[in-house]
Amino acid sequence: MKADKKPAKKLEELGSKLVADINKGKNPTIEFSSRTLSNVVYDTKTKTLGLGEKQQQRTFFNVGHAKKFLQTLEVAKISKNLLDVGKHASLRDVFYMAKRTMHDSSINVVDDQVESDKALEDLELITDLSREQLNINANKMGSVAGNVVIEDSGDTINWAKLGSGGWSIPSNVEDIEFKSIKAKYVIYMEKQAVWERLHEDKFWEKQNCLIVTSQGQTTRGIRRLLQRLSQEHDLPIYVLADFDPWGFYIYSVLKFGSINLAHMSDTMTLQNARFLGVTADDVANYDLKKHFIKFKDVDLTRIKQISDYDWFKKNKEWQRQFKMMKDFGAKLEIQALSSKGITFISEKYLPEKIKKREFLD
Amino acid sequence: MKADKKPAKKLEELGSKLVADINKGKNPTIEFSSRTLSNVVYDTKTKTLGLGEKQQQRTFFNVGHAKKFLQTLEVAKISKNLLDVGKHASLRDVFYMAKRTMHDSSINVVDDQVESDKALEDLELITDLSREQLNINANKMGSVAGNVVIEDSGDTINWAKLGSGGWSIPSNVEDIEFKSIKAKYVIYMEKQAVWERLHEDKFWEKQNCLIVTSQGQTTRGIRRLLQRLSQEHDLPIYVLADFDPWGFYIYSVLKFGSINLAHMSDTMTLQNARFLGVTADDVANYDLKKHFIKFKDVDLTRIKQISDYDWFKKNKEWQRQFKMMKDFGAKLEIQALSSKGITFISEKYLPEKIKKREFLD
Repeated sequence: MKADKKPAKKLEELGSKLVADINKGKNPTIEFSSRTLSNVVYDTKTKTLGLGEKQQQRTFFNVGHAKKFLQTLEVAKISKNLLDVGKHASLRDVFYMAKRTMHDSSINVVDDQVESDKALEDLELITDLSREQLNINANKMGSVAGNVVIEDSGDTINWAKLGSGGWSIPSNVEDIEFKSIKAKYVIYMEKQAVWERLHEDKFWEKQNCLIVTSQGQTTRGIRRLLQRLSQEHDLPIYVLADFDPWGFYIYSVLKFGSINLAHMSDTMTLQNARFLGVTADDVANYDLKKHFIKFKDVDLTRIKQISDYDWFKKNKEWQRQFKMMKDFGAKLEIQALSSKGITFISEKYLPEKIKKREFLD
Repeated sequence: MKADKKPAKKLEELGSKLVADINKGKNPTIEFSSRTLSNVVYDTKTKTLGLGEKQQQRTFFNVGHAKKFLQTLEVAKISKNLLDVGKHASLRDVFYMAKRTMHDSSINVVDDQVESDKALEDLELITDLSREQLNINANKMGSVAGNVVIEDSGDTINWAKLGSGGWSIPSNVEDIEFKSIKAKYVIYMEKQAVWERLHEDKFWEKQNCLIVTSQGQTTRGIRRLLQRLSQEHDLPIYVLADFDPWGFYIYSVLKFGSINLAHMSDTMTLQNARFLGVTADDVANYDLKKHFIKFKDVDLTRIKQISDYDWFKKNKEWQRQFKMMKDFGAKLEIQALSSKGITFISEKYLPEKIKKREFLD
């Protein structure tokens, strides 16, 4: 584990600043960007969600702020301890560590994980450090395979030599070192079963690419892994998901960021991600109408919301997709491709689409 | 991939038998154990759920059977094709492959995955082969670390040398070969975050054990992996879960089997699994009451159901646990141990409990 002194130092500076306030007889104050929805803006230049100019203050001598102030410092203390001993904790761990009384009080510092999570998000903003840099991890999920050699925790690991399972992606990939990468692109897919299909068919070997999967939503560990592959090694990321509002949403979050993580867009978004499939055009091109799953009300509501996102609103190609989906009144799972034959996806669908560069941007 | 001729041969025999029926002018008939609830019995000798003596017949010329008969054969055909080409498919894939019309008919062989899943469970019974042997996989999930070297798909993989991520457990572990195992026991835990904790603390190295996790429910791939480690290498399996009805249920399914998979108990249950924690006694021993989460109605209902299971009913130790949980009217998450310090679980709680052999059986 690399001992990164910077995050610990930033936390110390935060503490010293507050001690200085106290010594000067001033009200201890923390200042950081406001995270209210009205301050979340879509930056048309960087094409990501980010925070605007609004600042907020949190002061100790303020009935409305005092508890949050305390919670922020409690989480900062927990993170500092973790950094000092070189250990990592999960969000749930942090909650249990912060759920304690102080001195004679019978009131807990936090009673609900929502409180410690919020305090931690504030701390990310205050220090400009990600949760991962603060040694606090998200959920672990997902697998990867391909011609890549990495070094992690003292081990040299070859992603091409891990049998049918692949490498299990940790929740925190900040300390991984890439030793060698032989690949032209990365396919990220929502479904483990599709990953196992491509892996068994040696897709990554034949097509000279990497295959990455989670199960359902993309965890922060996976997003950071994809971002590092994309930024440090210039690999394009192709997203493979169901043809449904959820599949589009996965792509949207990966590429443009999310409201919750608007303050993290620079380390979390994937500028050069492209949507590979399944698209509305695939339905006709590969004769998949038979496998439509009829929209429920919630699907229609969701696709209307998504089509209204700033970054999709002026994108004709995407609006065309949304309209076609609405007109179909139906969605389609990627595994419907199996009806064409078990290796159809790896031998025909994907090679064809990638060759023709049929991406949505 | 090992080419196992046996499953394919069994499917051929099934086909030949039916062709013979037809040639003799007999009604084509398949016979297999009944899977109705009344035929699921708890075997007090093997201590697992299994199927009783009742048999059921499925005949082609019977209005009530014809479609199911067809579905069973369709799934058998799909499996045979997979075995012939040495490929694997997911349950969802099988559904899409079976969702097709025949000749001039406009009726699909299956319209819903429930139908193909049921047909496959029947096929397991008919052939005495597991879904995995029929090359049809469940979900992939989970990670493993420890001093074990395996061979899988032509790769030699050392579970001790895979960095912070570990080996990603595939959905099908039937073809894995264990080359060397240095461990005294296996800890299986419900939560990835706990696994990452133990892995970071090098628990498996210090304690000479293996650590395995899923996220939530134990997948079939993981159950089979644990069973193979337990049966082929005589390793005891210790289960680490939350102190709640769900945690107890995870243990119950692992050790005694489940109603759905009663026909698979011999390949799926873990006779020598023991429950390591979190137990009702831990609450007092480690002063965890503060972190109780109050029961909801559903928790109480669930614990009443579980305490009534045949295998728990006469077990005084378990009944004591159930009673204490009911009296508490509360549950507790394993991560509450973090309130005692981040490495408390790996440096005190687990070593202490294992040394004192504080297991529930």
